[in-house]
Amino acid sequence: MQLAIIGLGRMGGNMARRLIKGGHECLVFDRSPKAVQDLTRDGAVETTSLADLASKLNKPRAVWLMVPAAAVDETIADLVPHLESGDIIIDGGNSYYVDDIRRADELASRGIDYVDVGTSGGVWGLERGYCMMIGGPQEAVRRLDPVFKTLAPGRGEISRTPGREKLDGTAELGYLHCGPHGAGHFVKMVHNGIEYGIMAAYAEGLDVLQQANVGKRQHAVDAETSPLRDPKLYQYDFNLRDVAEVWRRGSVIASWLLDLTAAALVQDQGLSKFAGRVSDSGEGRWTIKAAIDEAVPVPVLSTALYERFSSRGEAEFQDKVLSAMRFHFGGHVEKRAG
Amino acid sequence: MQLAIIGLGRMGGNMARRLIKGGHECLVFDRSPKAVQDLTRDGAVETTSLADLASKLNKPRAVWLMVPAAAVDETIADLVPHLESGDIIIDGGNSYYVDDIRRADELASRGIDYVDVGTSGGVWGLERGYCMMIGGPQEAVRRLDPVFKTLAPGRGEISRTPGREKLDGTAELGYLHCGPHGAGHFVKMVHNGIEYGIMAAYAEGLDVLQQANVGKRQHAVDAETSPLRDPKLYQYDFNLRDVAEVWRRGSVIASWLLDLTAAALVQDQGLSKFAGRVSDSGEGRWTIKAAIDEAVPVPVLSTALYERFSSRGEAEFQDKVLSAMRFHFGGHVEKRAG
Amino acid sequence: MQLAIIGLGRMGGNMARRLIKGGHECLVFDRSPKAVQDLTRDGAVETTSLADLASKLNKPRAVWLMVPAAAVDETIADLVPHLESGDIIIDGGNSYYVDDIRRADELASRGIDYVDVGTSGGVWGLERGYCMMIGGPQEAVRRLDPVFKTLAPGRGEISRTPGREKLDGTAELGYLHCGPHGAGHFVKMVHNGIEYGIMAAYAEGLDVLQQANVGKRQHAVDAETSPLRDPKLYQYDFNLRDVAEVWRRGSVIASWLLDLTAAALVQDQGLSKFAGRVSDSGEGRWTIKAAIDEAVPVPVLSTALYERFSSRGEAEFQDKVLSAMRFHFGGHVEKRAG
Amino acid sequence: MQLAIIGLGRMGGNMARRLIKGGHECLVFDRSPKAVQDLTRDGAVETTSLADLASKLNKPRAVWLMVPAAAVDETIADLVPHLESGDIIIDGGNSYYVDDIRRADELASRGIDYVDVGTSGGVWGLERGYCMMIGGPQEAVRRLDPVFKTLAPGRGEISRTPGREKLDGTAELGYLHCGPHGAGHFVKMVHNGIEYGIMAAYAEGLDVLQQANVGKRQHAVDAETSPLRDPKLYQYDFNLRDVAEVWRRGSVIASWLLDLTAAALVQDQGLSKFAGRVSDSGEGRWTIKAAIDEAVPVPVLSTALYERFSSRGEAEFQDKVLSAMRFHFGGHVEKRAG
Repeated sequence: MQLAIIGLGRMGGNMARRLIKGGHECLVFDRSPKAVQDLTRDGAVETTSLADLASKLNKPRAVWLMVPAAAVDETIADLVPHLESGDIIIDGGNSYYVDDIRRADELASRGIDYVDVGTSGGVWGLERGYCMMIGGPQEAVRRLDPVFKTLAPGRGEISRTPGREKLDGTAELGYLHCGPHGAGHFVKMVHNGIEYGIMAAYAEGLDVLQQANVGKRQHAVDAETSPLRDPKLYQYDFNLRDVAEVWRRGSVIASWLLDLTAAALVQDQGLSKFAGRVSDSGEGRWTIKAAIDEAVPVPVLSTALYERFSSRGEAEFQDKVLSAMRFHFGGHVEKRAG
Repeated sequence: MQLAIIGLGRMGGNMARRLIKGGHECLVFDRSPKAVQDLTRDGAVETTSLADLASKLNKPRAVWLMVPAAAVDETIADLVPHLESGDIIIDGGNSYYVDDIRRADELASRGIDYVDVGTSGGVWGLERGYCMMIGGPQEAVRRLDPVFKTLAPGRGEISRTPGREKLDGTAELGYLHCGPHGAGHFVKMVHNGIEYGIMAAYAEGLDVLQQANVGKRQHAVDAETSPLRDPKLYQYDFNLRDVAEVWRRGSVIASWLLDLTAAALVQDQGLSKFAGRVSDSGEGRWTIKAAIDEAVPVPVLSTALYERFSSRGEAEFQDKVLSAMRFHFGGHVEKRAG
Repeated sequence: MQLAIIGLGRMGGNMARRLIKGGHECLVFDRSPKAVQDLTRDGAVETTSLADLASKLNKPRAVWLMVPAAAVDETIADLVPHLESGDIIIDGGNSYYVDDIRRADELASRGIDYVDVGTSGGVWGLERGYCMMIGGPQEAVRRLDPVFKTLAPGRGEISRTPGREKLDGTAELGYLHCGPHGAGHFVKMVHNGIEYGIMAAYAEGLDVLQQANVGKRQHAVDAETSPLRDPKLYQYDFNLRDVAEVWRRGSVIASWLLDLTAAALVQDQGLSKFAGRVSDSGEGRWTIKAAIDEAVPVPVLSTALYERFSSRGEAEFQDKVLSAMRFHFGGHVEKRAG
Repeated sequence: MQLAIIGLGRMGGNMARRLIKGGHECLVFDRSPKAVQDLTRDGAVETTSLADLASKLNKPRAVWLMVPAAAVDETIADLVPHLESGDIIIDGGNSYYVDDIRRADELASRGIDYVDVGTSGGVWGLERGYCMMIGGPQEAVRRLDPVFKTLAPGRGEISRTPGREKLDGTAELGYLHCGPHGAGHFVKMVHNGIEYGIMAAYAEGLDVLQQANVGKRQHAVDAETSPLRDPKLYQYDFNLRDVAEVWRRGSVIASWLLDLTAAALVQDQGLSKFAGRVSDSGEGRWTIKAAIDEAVPVPVLSTALYERFSSRGEAEFQDKVLSAMRFHFGGHVEKRAG
């Protein structure tokens, strides 16, 4: 079918390419003319403005936004004057589902349908296909089915879940209509919350392995530091590159994130090109807020998020408070780094 | 090659079967004659006592223990009188690596080699192969290589880690000599610690989805309960069975544990046959202790463990303390379960 | 000075009494005529409706609301038609500071000042005085100073912070103008977040003491349960009543919450009248949300909140997910409660 | 009574002074002759070696060790040849209770009694008195009662716990015989675990206040950073010095640690002389290990400990792992410190 894509960054560009390869007609727009031209070379139809884009689309139109979460509202505001009743706007970025609900209400007054799509797959999606979690009205989602089918990975070589053969639906193909407005981004939000937790689990565990030679290092004996009781229990120099690899093979913790970790460690066993300042991009935070509203305990997802905050130095003040308390009750002077 | 296996439970029995299928000669022993007979029917050589087992093995002997962690020391004590210098004892169960170091020292005085093998794969290992993490002296591990090769999953259909082709070693085949005595169980211990964290991440996230319809339920307005500010944000009835399935397909959090979760939800969407009392079997706890000795922060792995404790009612007293404090400072009377 | 108080529950009634004792004129209103009559007997001026209350107050009026957070907006809506420019509404309950900002904006259009007051002290405030954290415009807060001074505990017998003598302000008297609209409830919110953390610290620690006799209890040896390695290390039957008392005396963790805990344990060492279902009333949750917005890591405050959720059975579904995973990968059947 | 004190550091020196002031005869020894001379000037009896010390003591002797945990075993080994049956060794330092149990067994074979004393009070003990948690045999503890009574704070001006008047015991005086060998250090261990939790609760909360002006700062809009949804909710510049002070006055979270925090903030509102590298000295770690052995969930105490690890940079490797994963699945390049 025909679809317009606005926003040709890492994700949007590759999604357009996958759609074109799949036989769809793709109109593209981006603030950067260079990005548009690159895509045109790959078979997309160039547009030079939102007005141009709207005029080139058959009605009812379908426009897929793939812009930063913070730019969605503005893009919609610029786009809407060129659309009309029956058109569909799809937000495939990382929007907060709360915004989806609001936007859907606003657009409904103009007869424009709004569909929210949480998309996972990162830079690998072009090749592997994108896992899509979709929210919005039944009819609009149904109309976009050809697009979802092409973007999704499909059944591929992934083994079938036992019992699935008796069930209907598209989940097996890698896309799912999760519910009404916001449902797609809600499920994607939780997906990312889980992702943070899983990543932290691997990271913490690998760190325990990495430090398993601590018994070989000398420690000063003073009142501030607890000496290692039994240094001979911590004499291991593990080869993390091989450990990550072996876990990929038949272990309970095999996963795609582990595949990536193994690949990263093959490239650079010490990960020396990374400083360890870990960003977080919204969904992890929103997951915690939703959990709190629902009274669902999420200590793993929360502490995973907080580790990212701390990695960026955000705990500095509270650490100073601790040092100040220790100084005042025990005369403890801070030990120097070293 | 020839190998004896002691302990024919869930794991040991299937490992024997996989070895026999792989062309090895397998002598088996278990406290239960029934278990031995079952294996004999599958091609194993029956033994009736540890003495009988030792006498039937060619020298130098190789004896693989697959018994509960709490029974390993006793089994070794019973077995050792029948062994001699040059023999190998392999502990393939869930031993604490600290015990491996001690046992290896004790057995070394008799010239008996000790090899510790952490094994992952659960009930799926017979078919998929077992991921093995191995600790012990180079020569003994090398001698057992044919056994490891058969038990391991091998390269199979799992995609190759980019860059791996330039590296040597057995990690790609699903088994790894991790280091000296205890190294195998150390790596397996951390593996399980990570497993707890990953499982908790999925469980917490799915719970956030499961409770996303909390806005549909009525809440009393009183000073004890915080009312939901915006019930219309929590009106989703998610189909978790489909959500777990779609995440298997191209998403960042695809994993084998997710595969199992999807299968469990297909069988019983409400998981009604489970009460939610979650056991923990040692490795998760030891991982935290090691992390603390090494001063590695592991909040995700720790809170995952504590969630299991709490699921079994282990927080009851501390919760009473909280209620008692609240009563004494604010006159807050506990709300009834409802 | 003259002040009206609406809401004569546990907190509001005692605050009125303390103000009357302090020489202020107190007009009171409550939905319950009985509550009003009780206060009248203690010297308050009875009012029979909000209109009556407004008509009896000298202008500019000062009306202090002490109603459940969920009832504040409605009360203000009912009250405002009877007020006029220059009057002050004080919200002394547990409002979300976000609501304060909104309300202050709304009331500003009518020339009515809004002051938010976070109040700590619980049922003890009548005797000890109330610690008050205040937000709002300088002038309105200044006008209410006589009220704050009376409600607050004053310097009393609490030792002076070294260096305080050089500083101005009312903090030493137990009340503080913290900043503009919402500042009072923001500080109170964080205060409660801290309270949850401190309470949990004591509760967890006391539980570690309570279970320190676990080595005396028998444990089954099976693959599901990690046996206690060294039972002789856990043979202590601690007298928690005495432990809590001794900590009150010169230890680093002496506190008012510990005083209450010691009192609770004297009354009932086993805390048998509590079931351990711990409520949470909003501020703890909002603190986490604020922290997340600010990117401040708050693992202690968060896990303290989650323990309360879990105490009320809110983790049931996620625990079932864990059991289901364990069953599917390892054939682990849940152990019964025992 | 007569007592020898070995180890005249911050704690030991002041304890000797308090005992001398209380009328006891104090023999002192330290590796540093200067420390001995200082105490001699304050009324202590100088000793020049452990032999000298033993010869100057009346029998049965009582020797109080106040040396770093790592030096206790060596000191006992040096001391024991000079002692005889009936003598008492008291370890008043920060020993692991597991070591107490071992040492008591070893000393019992020579007829020497061992008493373990966990001591809280820090640099303030000289003036306030020391809170003491005591383990060991009934008779030896009873013999030392005069020493404990003098070192303890006594009832002082601390209000009596309601109902205490009906109970016996020394807890109200600030010292407590908690149980057999190790019981004193076990209770002190948990005390410190709680201390870490409480400190972290304050530190996290104050940090939430400190960052409450985040809405005033500009944030870049990009795919890596979640923009603050509502900057006008975070416009507060709180005066933490005053906030800490007001909380001391009638609030639920008043405590001695808060008193110290208030004092620290008066001296230096920005705590600029602290770097925020927070040490931990053993008890916090051991508390977690004990909790895990007992299957008691302690997420607050654990995360408090981990915050200290992280403050010293111990999470660096795991953070690099996270950055590496993010780079490999999403092409996310780390943001620079800013």
